[in-house]
Amino acid sequence: MTKSRVEAFTDGVIAILITILVLDLHAPEDVTWIALRQLGEPFFAYVVSFIAIAIYWNNHHHLYQTVKKIDGTVLWVNTALLFWLSILPFATAWVGEHLTAMLPELIYAFVSFMCGLTYNLLDRCLVRVNGANSRVAIVSKHDRKRWLSLAIYAVGCLLTFVWPPAGLGASLMVSVLWFIPNQRVEQEFRVK
Amino acid sequence: MTKSRVEAFTDGVIAILITILVLDLHAPEDVTWIALRQLGEPFFAYVVSFIAIAIYWNNHHHLYQTVKKIDGTVLWVNTALLFWLSILPFATAWVGEHLTAMLPELIYAFVSFMCGLTYNLLDRCLVRVNGANSRVAIVSKHDRKRWLSLAIYAVGCLLTFVWPPAGLGASLMVSVLWFIPNQRVEQEFRVK
Amino acid sequence: MTKSRVEAFTDGVIAILITILVLDLHAPEDVTWIALRQLGEPFFAYVVSFIAIAIYWNNHHHLYQTVKKIDGTVLWVNTALLFWLSILPFATAWVGEHLTAMLPELIYAFVSFMCGLTYNLLDRCLVRVNGANSRVAIVSKHDRKRWLSLAIYAVGCLLTFVWPPAGLGASLMVSVLWFIPNQRVEQEFRVK
Amino acid sequence: MTKSRVEAFTDGVIAILITILVLDLHAPEDVTWIALRQLGEPFFAYVVSFIAIAIYWNNHHHLYQTVKKIDGTVLWVNTALLFWLSILPFATAWVGEHLTAMLPELIYAFVSFMCGLTYNLLDRCLVRVNGANSRVAIVSKHDRKRWLSLAIYAVGCLLTFVWPPAGLGASLMVSVLWFIPNQRVEQEFRVK
Repeated sequence: MTKSRVEAFTDGVIAILITILVLDLHAPEDVTWIALRQLGEPFFAYVVSFIAIAIYWNNHHHLYQTVKKIDGTVLWVNTALLFWLSILPFATAWVGEHLTAMLPELIYAFVSFMCGLTYNLLDRCLVRVNGANSRVAIVSKHDRKRWLSLAIYAVGCLLTFVWPPAGLGASLMVSVLWFIPNQRVEQEFRVK
Repeated sequence: MTKSRVEAFTDGVIAILITILVLDLHAPEDVTWIALRQLGEPFFAYVVSFIAIAIYWNNHHHLYQTVKKIDGTVLWVNTALLFWLSILPFATAWVGEHLTAMLPELIYAFVSFMCGLTYNLLDRCLVRVNGANSRVAIVSKHDRKRWLSLAIYAVGCLLTFVWPPAGLGASLMVSVLWFIPNQRVEQEFRVK
Repeated sequence: MTKSRVEAFTDGVIAILITILVLDLHAPEDVTWIALRQLGEPFFAYVVSFIAIAIYWNNHHHLYQTVKKIDGTVLWVNTALLFWLSILPFATAWVGEHLTAMLPELIYAFVSFMCGLTYNLLDRCLVRVNGANSRVAIVSKHDRKRWLSLAIYAVGCLLTFVWPPAGLGASLMVSVLWFIPNQRVEQEFRVK
Repeated sequence: MTKSRVEAFTDGVIAILITILVLDLHAPEDVTWIALRQLGEPFFAYVVSFIAIAIYWNNHHHLYQTVKKIDGTVLWVNTALLFWLSILPFATAWVGEHLTAMLPELIYAFVSFMCGLTYNLLDRCLVRVNGANSRVAIVSKHDRKRWLSLAIYAVGCLLTFVWPPAGLGASLMVSVLWFIPNQRVEQEFRVK
């Protein structure tokens, strides 16, 4: 299993996931502003998930760029990450219809949490395979955003019991966290 | 982030978008010419969107071929372009059912405009990163079609208030504009 | 525009088309043999289209392997081929529900014919760009299957007026024609 | 036909298949735990198919890594494998609604069996083309898991007549069989 094949397959799955999200935005029967307004909530959920998946794609790519070796465990944890990401379109469709209902928001937050958890596991596995002095280990050591994201998702899960919108809210907060340009990553970018 | 990964991901998303457009062309219950005739309008919208997305793919590729460096901003503007393109299947499905209704045509024209705007922003960002003497800056300087397209989309948006079909019409006009072979681009083609 | 990008984009679109065909095979409500039996006709149409698209992928790839140069016209004819292929899932869904109805069969045969026509146009354009002594021109000269296929599709279109199943039948006949291993192509295969 | 094109096309189709599985997980109308609970069975079928397809992707890749030559027969057997895999989303959707019904489980087990059969055929063809001393032939000789999987699927088919859940059960058993890390494969992994 070469690294590039895992990257290509992951990219393929993520490109499809980010695209089939739109299949849950159904064209309204009516052609009034009211009909369009009713799409507001599903559209909001769509935007939140689109950004979240785009960030995973971005981070996944940066992670693999710093990696030299992979093994079977990495492969399975990577597949687990794809599994949880693959459920996002379902969770998005459900939460988009019920922005203020506890259960859909909880499921959305839980799926987001599992995506974050498997992503962090993937990072740990890659560090273990490549050794403590590898580039992935060094970059990973300074990156506390990943664990903070996980904490936000977890708090989001719990908050949905008292304030349902915390589910999508947590995802949005994590996205803002990652959206802020990262000095260290920017430097890598510049080197073509 | 290497340039080739952004290209590959963008190609993947565009290939999926252009293909899932057809999922909104539902097979009629009936097998009469009348039933087929009723598909005429959705099919027309389908053709317009198919051509528009094909042109974006084509132009996006040419743009990146002239590029050496990218940065984090480019990445996010590229994602914004994919976001607006990803809404085209929804807008196409809605406008295809209501070719003469103002709101669906306005939304279609607005989404087209946002695609054009983010594409132009992408061009600006790429010029900024690669410098005023870069190949992308030189090619870009002589290319007024991009801004003309944006103007057509904007006029299309406004016109839908008095003449709804202007929404799809603007997209069609822009496509004709780009379909005309471009001498300069052709030359690049020949060099294998 | 490099040859490899056109290949990759075409492969992507074809991979998606061949896969979304299955979305029109809806799981029956019932769990009886009768319910399963009613899927027989959509399934038959599915198989015919799956094989047809697989053959286009195969042939498209062989065609581009013999090619050195492409130009803007090639690009647009290639897009036209993808356009007609992209309508196959719709035509398949319709004909699958009405195997003995004239109109769906005619549409299926017509779309098949247009796929064949644009494919042959693509071949002509590639020969023109690469010159009469190019490898693509030489291989193309000895390949009469392409024009025979086109004739079969055309006859299929006409026959549907008197015998509807000729639509899918023509596609099946062309597939059999291409399924037979081709000595010359096999030789190329062997050279890794 | 180069090996890499077949790999890329197969990867593309498998990435799409594993992703469109989720389209059959429909967001419930209701927002109660009962509504969520009713998704339990489709979700279980979803997980089983996701793992099965992920394993096919994994194995397919390992198989091609040991291969030097391919021919037309390999190409068609590979397409046959993709065909049977492409029916899995349909079978999953049906069985997910009726976990204890004989017919959907039988169909699921049968499609799983055909995937396994075409995969083994593919292995045989690759060995034949590359010769008895090739790396693919040597690795293949020691790999009895493939035939054991096929036997489990076959037994699963028969068992569904007396105990329906054996259909998904067989798929799950085969997945467990492949999930266990394989010493020999691991070694290959380590070599980057």
